[in-house]
Amino acid sequence: MTDRAVDALRPLSLEPGWAPYAEGSCLISTGRTRVLCTASVAEEVPAWRERSGKGWVTGEYGMLPRSTHSRRDRERDGVKGRTQEIQRLIGRSLRSVTDLAALGPRTITLDCDVLQADGGTRTASITGAFVALELACRSLVAQGLLAASPVREGVAAVSVGIVGGVPRLDLDYPMDRDAQVDMNVVATASGRLVEVQGTAEGDPFTRAEHDRLLDLALGGIDQLLAAQREILEAVR
Amino acid sequence: MTDRAVDALRPLSLEPGWAPYAEGSCLISTGRTRVLCTASVAEEVPAWRERSGKGWVTGEYGMLPRSTHSRRDRERDGVKGRTQEIQRLIGRSLRSVTDLAALGPRTITLDCDVLQADGGTRTASITGAFVALELACRSLVAQGLLAASPVREGVAAVSVGIVGGVPRLDLDYPMDRDAQVDMNVVATASGRLVEVQGTAEGDPFTRAEHDRLLDLALGGIDQLLAAQREILEAVR
Amino acid sequence: MTDRAVDALRPLSLEPGWAPYAEGSCLISTGRTRVLCTASVAEEVPAWRERSGKGWVTGEYGMLPRSTHSRRDRERDGVKGRTQEIQRLIGRSLRSVTDLAALGPRTITLDCDVLQADGGTRTASITGAFVALELACRSLVAQGLLAASPVREGVAAVSVGIVGGVPRLDLDYPMDRDAQVDMNVVATASGRLVEVQGTAEGDPFTRAEHDRLLDLALGGIDQLLAAQREILEAVR
Amino acid sequence: MTDRAVDALRPLSLEPGWAPYAEGSCLISTGRTRVLCTASVAEEVPAWRERSGKGWVTGEYGMLPRSTHSRRDRERDGVKGRTQEIQRLIGRSLRSVTDLAALGPRTITLDCDVLQADGGTRTASITGAFVALELACRSLVAQGLLAASPVREGVAAVSVGIVGGVPRLDLDYPMDRDAQVDMNVVATASGRLVEVQGTAEGDPFTRAEHDRLLDLALGGIDQLLAAQREILEAVR
Amino acid sequence: MTDRAVDALRPLSLEPGWAPYAEGSCLISTGRTRVLCTASVAEEVPAWRERSGKGWVTGEYGMLPRSTHSRRDRERDGVKGRTQEIQRLIGRSLRSVTDLAALGPRTITLDCDVLQADGGTRTASITGAFVALELACRSLVAQGLLAASPVREGVAAVSVGIVGGVPRLDLDYPMDRDAQVDMNVVATASGRLVEVQGTAEGDPFTRAEHDRLLDLALGGIDQLLAAQREILEAVR
Amino acid sequence: MTDRAVDALRPLSLEPGWAPYAEGSCLISTGRTRVLCTASVAEEVPAWRERSGKGWVTGEYGMLPRSTHSRRDRERDGVKGRTQEIQRLIGRSLRSVTDLAALGPRTITLDCDVLQADGGTRTASITGAFVALELACRSLVAQGLLAASPVREGVAAVSVGIVGGVPRLDLDYPMDRDAQVDMNVVATASGRLVEVQGTAEGDPFTRAEHDRLLDLALGGIDQLLAAQREILEAVR
Repeated sequence: MTDRAVDALRPLSLEPGWAPYAEGSCLISTGRTRVLCTASVAEEVPAWRERSGKGWVTGEYGMLPRSTHSRRDRERDGVKGRTQEIQRLIGRSLRSVTDLAALGPRTITLDCDVLQADGGTRTASITGAFVALELACRSLVAQGLLAASPVREGVAAVSVGIVGGVPRLDLDYPMDRDAQVDMNVVATASGRLVEVQGTAEGDPFTRAEHDRLLDLALGGIDQLLAAQREILEAVR
Repeated sequence: MTDRAVDALRPLSLEPGWAPYAEGSCLISTGRTRVLCTASVAEEVPAWRERSGKGWVTGEYGMLPRSTHSRRDRERDGVKGRTQEIQRLIGRSLRSVTDLAALGPRTITLDCDVLQADGGTRTASITGAFVALELACRSLVAQGLLAASPVREGVAAVSVGIVGGVPRLDLDYPMDRDAQVDMNVVATASGRLVEVQGTAEGDPFTRAEHDRLLDLALGGIDQLLAAQREILEAVR
Repeated sequence: MTDRAVDALRPLSLEPGWAPYAEGSCLISTGRTRVLCTASVAEEVPAWRERSGKGWVTGEYGMLPRSTHSRRDRERDGVKGRTQEIQRLIGRSLRSVTDLAALGPRTITLDCDVLQADGGTRTASITGAFVALELACRSLVAQGLLAASPVREGVAAVSVGIVGGVPRLDLDYPMDRDAQVDMNVVATASGRLVEVQGTAEGDPFTRAEHDRLLDLALGGIDQLLAAQREILEAVR
Repeated sequence: MTDRAVDALRPLSLEPGWAPYAEGSCLISTGRTRVLCTASVAEEVPAWRERSGKGWVTGEYGMLPRSTHSRRDRERDGVKGRTQEIQRLIGRSLRSVTDLAALGPRTITLDCDVLQADGGTRTASITGAFVALELACRSLVAQGLLAASPVREGVAAVSVGIVGGVPRLDLDYPMDRDAQVDMNVVATASGRLVEVQGTAEGDPFTRAEHDRLLDLALGGIDQLLAAQREILEAVR
Repeated sequence: MTDRAVDALRPLSLEPGWAPYAEGSCLISTGRTRVLCTASVAEEVPAWRERSGKGWVTGEYGMLPRSTHSRRDRERDGVKGRTQEIQRLIGRSLRSVTDLAALGPRTITLDCDVLQADGGTRTASITGAFVALELACRSLVAQGLLAASPVREGVAAVSVGIVGGVPRLDLDYPMDRDAQVDMNVVATASGRLVEVQGTAEGDPFTRAEHDRLLDLALGGIDQLLAAQREILEAVR
Repeated sequence: MTDRAVDALRPLSLEPGWAPYAEGSCLISTGRTRVLCTASVAEEVPAWRERSGKGWVTGEYGMLPRSTHSRRDRERDGVKGRTQEIQRLIGRSLRSVTDLAALGPRTITLDCDVLQADGGTRTASITGAFVALELACRSLVAQGLLAASPVREGVAAVSVGIVGGVPRLDLDYPMDRDAQVDMNVVATASGRLVEVQGTAEGDPFTRAEHDRLLDLALGGIDQLLAAQREILEAVR
């Protein structure tokens, strides 16, 4: 695993349509991390959103109990802070590239369920959920419910971090566990930033380190966006 | 789908080792129903079980939100009665073929997560969980923690029901939805019954109908047990 | 207690009208088990049932904290799986003999509260709840809200099991605790089955044992149905 | 009901031993109000009480769903403020007459379950729970676990109120519903007060009215204490 | 602290308008106890109150985690019995002086948050909440939503108790902790009682002690009512 | 408010010792935002931290119901995602400047309660909590429990954002509501970054905008750190 270049992504695979009942779906694998992303369309919006005429895009995130090296309890009596943070991040990221007025008064829920976890599950969720979202919007167009897809451009995400003093792209779980700094970046096909979340787990980091991490992340996101485009062309 | 003979199972596939972090795992597909079963070993027992020296086998059951034709909410604020019933059934069924004294003071948790639901998810969970359990016990033997597997014999389960007045084996979702009577049967390789749960959804049923359903179920379970044996031989 | 013949019921008493505020009620005693069953009528149906024009019959089940030999905690932070299973069983059983279209858009809730528990509380609940249900329906007729009772026929339930290798009718708590197999059977006055729930607590059981248990249960249920008819005649 | 004198109690009955599994029990009926009170002994104390060497007496309170004129939901997702207030009142009242050091490191839980509710359920709970408590303490003495009962003196409770401008003793439900002022009083055999809880439901009340209500309550409590003594003598 | 006369209040301060976003607010300090009281107006009533045309006044109570000498956990998974009792007391007390019909179909919520706790927080909450309520009603009048304030008269509260055998007014925390008897009294400007809650924490108390405590409380409440009047005049 | 220069902080005040019972405390006001920060020391660590010998620093965050322009419900049935995110951020930020090994096996809890909310409450919480933390550590030194403060350097936080196309420092609520981009930055006295959390609320932002926001934030944090130093000198 340590053979991988510091600016190289892990092997990536995107399998659209893995969940046939969903309006859109994608099984994303990045290294040993596997996340099943589904997009479900409902012809209604949350109560606070009614009368706006606009739609809503939201995310949910879960981990199967044995997606991890040791078993984790199910979140059945309320959801942990980490899960809530990730869900909010997924929702914001996908909304940032969706024209909610064009979507109309409907909700698309992106469920990201981690089947296997080896680091980077939240960023893989975003990258995979984009494919599911685009496929769901195509199905709305195909049914004549929308004239065109309300998705404006691609969005993808990756984690970067400083491990053993070295800035690296796309951390797997052992790297993530040992990282001094961990940063998740979400960016769009037009090269703009949606989210930058950098956190010192131990010692704080310098401005120069911050800038280097952001460079690495944007390079990785370009490759992820290209892979999304390719797979979405292939299934058209 | 209606072409299938009344005493024929749906196409079955058992994929052992699908979840590599778990001590044992099996992805079971029966028709369009797919359930990921994992077995997790913990070197401890529930508090009420301590000092008995015996082990414990328990089950958990979940459905991904978009495993179904329309999206279902996650059970995050407590678990529904249906889920609890199924979990208790899974645990009892697998305990019935396990020598808990021989297992020693450890717990095996069988997580059955439905990736796709087209009827018969609880019985598929039991059939798949048996494979995961056996593989986890083999791993305990391989590690020298146990001298021999505490699993005494195979166990499998199937649903039967009366649909349109006709007793049938292995109901898919449309059949299940329309069935007047629904019965789940769990039985072992030695031909004995672990559970018989017959329910009239509408009109009650006669003793003769009950007996015919039980015959159908035991025939189907024989085929499931054979498939388990075959796959467990193959991965030895 | 062990003097009782293997096919004999425990002493039975049905006291209709025990809870005067309820539209129907019955205190059932079977041996030392005592359950207060009340039927409450509400002129509304659950939300998912609206617009169907049909009624609903549902059950709730509880145990007083000191109904048992040692005190049990109240279920105040969510209800256990066992309680939910029993509630669902009570509801299904009573619905199986009720014409819900004839009942019209109202709900009858059958509350079964165990005052004293010595085995067989769920089956006593069903047998007692039937009396409460019938009395509540008579009160709807008496008020002119219904032309005739929507109850089609009697329904009663009993437990059977294999204790010390011997199939027996109507288990009390010590028998139930020691039983290898436990079966609950619900059947109607027309001799048809509503529910058959047989469970191996330890070793699985043979098909022949299953058939013998079912015979015993149907014999016991005939006696329970006769007792219901007698008491319901007496209070007419 | 309005024939009853303003200073007369409703007809009272105390049935000790109604719940045979409990260490002490009493079914109290006052008019149409019926409360089953049980005392359960546990050989342990709450965690915060450990190392004190002293015991604990606590109360729980519940209403059967159809104890009331119209059905009430069970308190299964947390307990209402009213229930918690009553539970705390029951516990404090019984502790006030118990020598907790003499009780030793054990807990007595007084469960007061309302089978039928026609006003005054919290005060009936206290009066009945005292009988259950005394019987449980006698059983500890009988088993040789205690040399003498740790109960120092009797305690009983009653409600009073101003109805239609008239101060009255022992309100039933219709009086309670219409009362401008409601007061619950708990007092001991030595004529001392444990609790005085007076509440203006509508208009505030004068000091003179307050004093008259307290006089009425103390008169009623004397009669309740006499009835407790009589029944406890009878079962000795 | 022990220098204070048995019938003297602690130093009192009322700071109206402390929370500028609220329709009415008051920071009350009595000795070292500090409670921030805010009144929030909503143009709606609880569901059960709809169609009555009348308004509603309700209270909530909380303590900052470090308002106390040692830190207390936040009540984030349900509210304790003590908190619920206090909330109900605050609501009832303020409703007793409000003409709910004149208030019209709106709700005023009185939030009483304890910033520092040195005994008497519930009674300080009531005394401070009255100022917040009056200011909120004045603001409704000023906006032309009401012709006149629906507040009929002042209301205030104080605690009294028997400490070391001596009846005392206005207990601070050390006194409260050691008190044999604790009584909270709520009374109005017209000299009438709203609530009297006397509790023996240890030994019961005599009628004479009860009467002396009530005298002390009413004397203290007169001073509190005068302070309220003064401050409300000053900000007019 | 719009007169403030784009790179100017709002008026700042730090009042140490505002909560006298706490081991350390600070009331921070920045513009109209007011947060009470307390530090509570407990001589124990979370269970998962035992046997490490190291200490722990954690944060909790709450808002009074009427700290905001319109009333918010209390979080009494579980805590929202936003609150959990903020709590985790506070804890991580303060841990980043604390030598947990030097702190020893004790926990410092930083409670940040918003008394008044006008934007920037999470960053004000961090800046104020640092003062409370340092004071609590001084008290540990003063008591002889620690030889020196385990706090390594100052830490402070501020929000920045793009409002009306213009990057600005220290957003108040109206600015925050209208911001296209919102970024929270936490940094230390040595000029290093602890957290960078930039979020596009609407359109994504460019790398150049991101860099400009970070510059603004670091300038503001320098001033906040100077104010902390000054106040901590003054109370030494």
